[in-house]
Amino acid sequence: MTATTQPPVPFTREDYGARMASVTEEARRAGLDGIIVTPGPDLVWLTGYSPTAITERLTMLVLRPQQRPTLLVPALERPDAEGAEGAASLEVRDWADGSDPYQVARDLLNREGRFGVSDSAWAMHLLGLQHVLPRTSYRAITQALPMMRAIKDENELARLALAGTAADATYREIIQLRFEGRRETEVAADLARLLREFGHEQVDFTVVGSGPNGANPHHEADLRVIQHGDAVVLDFGGLMHGYGSDTTRTVCVGEPSEEVRKVHDIVRQAQQAAFEAVRPGVACQEIDRVARAVIEEAGYGQQFIHRTGHGIGVTTHEPPYMVEGEEQPLQPGMCFSIEPGIYLAGRFGVRIEDIVTVTESGGERLNNTDHGLAIVR
Amino acid sequence: MTATTQPPVPFTREDYGARMASVTEEARRAGLDGIIVTPGPDLVWLTGYSPTAITERLTMLVLRPQQRPTLLVPALERPDAEGAEGAASLEVRDWADGSDPYQVARDLLNREGRFGVSDSAWAMHLLGLQHVLPRTSYRAITQALPMMRAIKDENELARLALAGTAADATYREIIQLRFEGRRETEVAADLARLLREFGHEQVDFTVVGSGPNGANPHHEADLRVIQHGDAVVLDFGGLMHGYGSDTTRTVCVGEPSEEVRKVHDIVRQAQQAAFEAVRPGVACQEIDRVARAVIEEAGYGQQFIHRTGHGIGVTTHEPPYMVEGEEQPLQPGMCFSIEPGIYLAGRFGVRIEDIVTVTESGGERLNNTDHGLAIVR
Repeated sequence: MTATTQPPVPFTREDYGARMASVTEEARRAGLDGIIVTPGPDLVWLTGYSPTAITERLTMLVLRPQQRPTLLVPALERPDAEGAEGAASLEVRDWADGSDPYQVARDLLNREGRFGVSDSAWAMHLLGLQHVLPRTSYRAITQALPMMRAIKDENELARLALAGTAADATYREIIQLRFEGRRETEVAADLARLLREFGHEQVDFTVVGSGPNGANPHHEADLRVIQHGDAVVLDFGGLMHGYGSDTTRTVCVGEPSEEVRKVHDIVRQAQQAAFEAVRPGVACQEIDRVARAVIEEAGYGQQFIHRTGHGIGVTTHEPPYMVEGEEQPLQPGMCFSIEPGIYLAGRFGVRIEDIVTVTESGGERLNNTDHGLAIVR
Repeated sequence: MTATTQPPVPFTREDYGARMASVTEEARRAGLDGIIVTPGPDLVWLTGYSPTAITERLTMLVLRPQQRPTLLVPALERPDAEGAEGAASLEVRDWADGSDPYQVARDLLNREGRFGVSDSAWAMHLLGLQHVLPRTSYRAITQALPMMRAIKDENELARLALAGTAADATYREIIQLRFEGRRETEVAADLARLLREFGHEQVDFTVVGSGPNGANPHHEADLRVIQHGDAVVLDFGGLMHGYGSDTTRTVCVGEPSEEVRKVHDIVRQAQQAAFEAVRPGVACQEIDRVARAVIEEAGYGQQFIHRTGHGIGVTTHEPPYMVEGEEQPLQPGMCFSIEPGIYLAGRFGVRIEDIVTVTESGGERLNNTDHGLAIVR
């Protein structure tokens, strides 16, 4: 079994320039004077620039209508920043250790401006800006421009599909391996190894929740030895060519009990129903409601203790969220997880998750392994 | 060559309880109504709790005088949070997907309170709190309580010393390997492998800056093939038992040129002079000044383009900073890097770095490999 790992088309300086231009225009239309982007997924997506480490040293991209995009960096990061693919479309400015970066930043912002700021910008930096420019105001980018990175173009979709194919290959391999008698951490290490073998450059999570551990949806993997009869939640993903995978399947070690079969079946139906509800114009919360209705009707509503899904792109967790209250309509090119689950405390859990993209007429899965309850050794 | 890797004494719930109590008292003395700690090093240090991933879901510890410490977590993270060693000393509260976490957070804060907030708290969360409690005010923790984690106790020092020993062992091994004809990334992979072999659970950086790449202080490692005659900057570190290492040595592939020797000698003298200046009561900026004076006197002041050092503990980059303007006095138990460098653009760079701890009477190095210019193959 091999997954397709041929490299996708590189993003060009024109791609980055176009993204910066369209986000600047979106910001203007949203009534903002600009946006401030700090290292992390927004900056990678807009410029291709990702500093060695995200530290206390201020790095920020400022996008303002009618102004050339400007990237402010610590002086010692300038060579790296200038080497980023998107750097051709912006001006790089720097500040030196020992000087006050907020004084430099001040010149890049309007004194009474309203700005969107990266969700994960450090509070320290936001407070620094609020201090030197007390009449500015700020909104988190996912509040101001929640759909900024949500709609993927063809090249991005191709990468997400490659990542999904690698995750599928990982699943097909892992279920060939022994589970019984091994620690969760050993199976988790196999998942990580397989994701890398199939082309991931970064592994973000390898959840192995066996028996009662599966009932904690954010359990990772611990020293528990997997037993005959255990249901085992496998939730794994990471980045490949910069774009995410995130797949969950629940398997059983030997013949499942009636109850495991029944719960698995309900989750499978909920996942399928939510998938079938995907089409342009449907509100995100509707996807959550559809999955939840199936589980509630089966009497397990109290045991489905998280939202149904999250967006995916240059991160494995981003808007749009499939959650009650999210009224944003689905649009072609959006990509997100559908991952209902049922968690029976102290006993077992079941979750099934695929990444789905919205097409002109419905939805399309980017993960395609079977939803049947696989029986493993 | 093996490094000591016997596990240190685990931190107890009493350790975490005492840290929370002392920080609360420090906050009170600093005129704050409390502090707000989000996932990351502050939270690990105060509670032992580190969520699977730092995400858009609000997690925050609130410490207020006269109040029991409270950790607010997403409902699905509650089991993990309750399992943290420090959880015995605090109350865990949760919020569910689909509800507004800031409304819950509001009940934990005074309406007109002044709070310290983790430097790396997400701007999104700070904005959420500022929105529901418009009369509160905030300062970054490193502004309000810069020395919160700076003074290490015996158990922390033991861990930093173990990490330093492992970094020393890594250096002694790497200089036995071939450099000439290999790519920087291959040597970097060896550094990462060795750090792990000697006990690191996390590798944060493996800089291999050969020839002209060494002149960029934040260069990591790229596909450049290392040449005979290259000076090569090796800067590597990560976490071991949760505490950091960070060492730099500059080596030469074959006989060094006169100029490489001369520049290396100046950096070595600067590093030594700064080390000898370490003692309780000396201002942090003095360490920077001493190193800088040596380099300036030798005529390379313009080529020393970064501060002299940074603190280290549960992160590899934290206060106190050895930088002009930092007047904080050194105190016994503080641990930080001393890492002067000279960077000759387009040609080569030299940096030498040790981690140093302040004792009652001076300084002590936690890295102890030779400072001589090692000649490698």
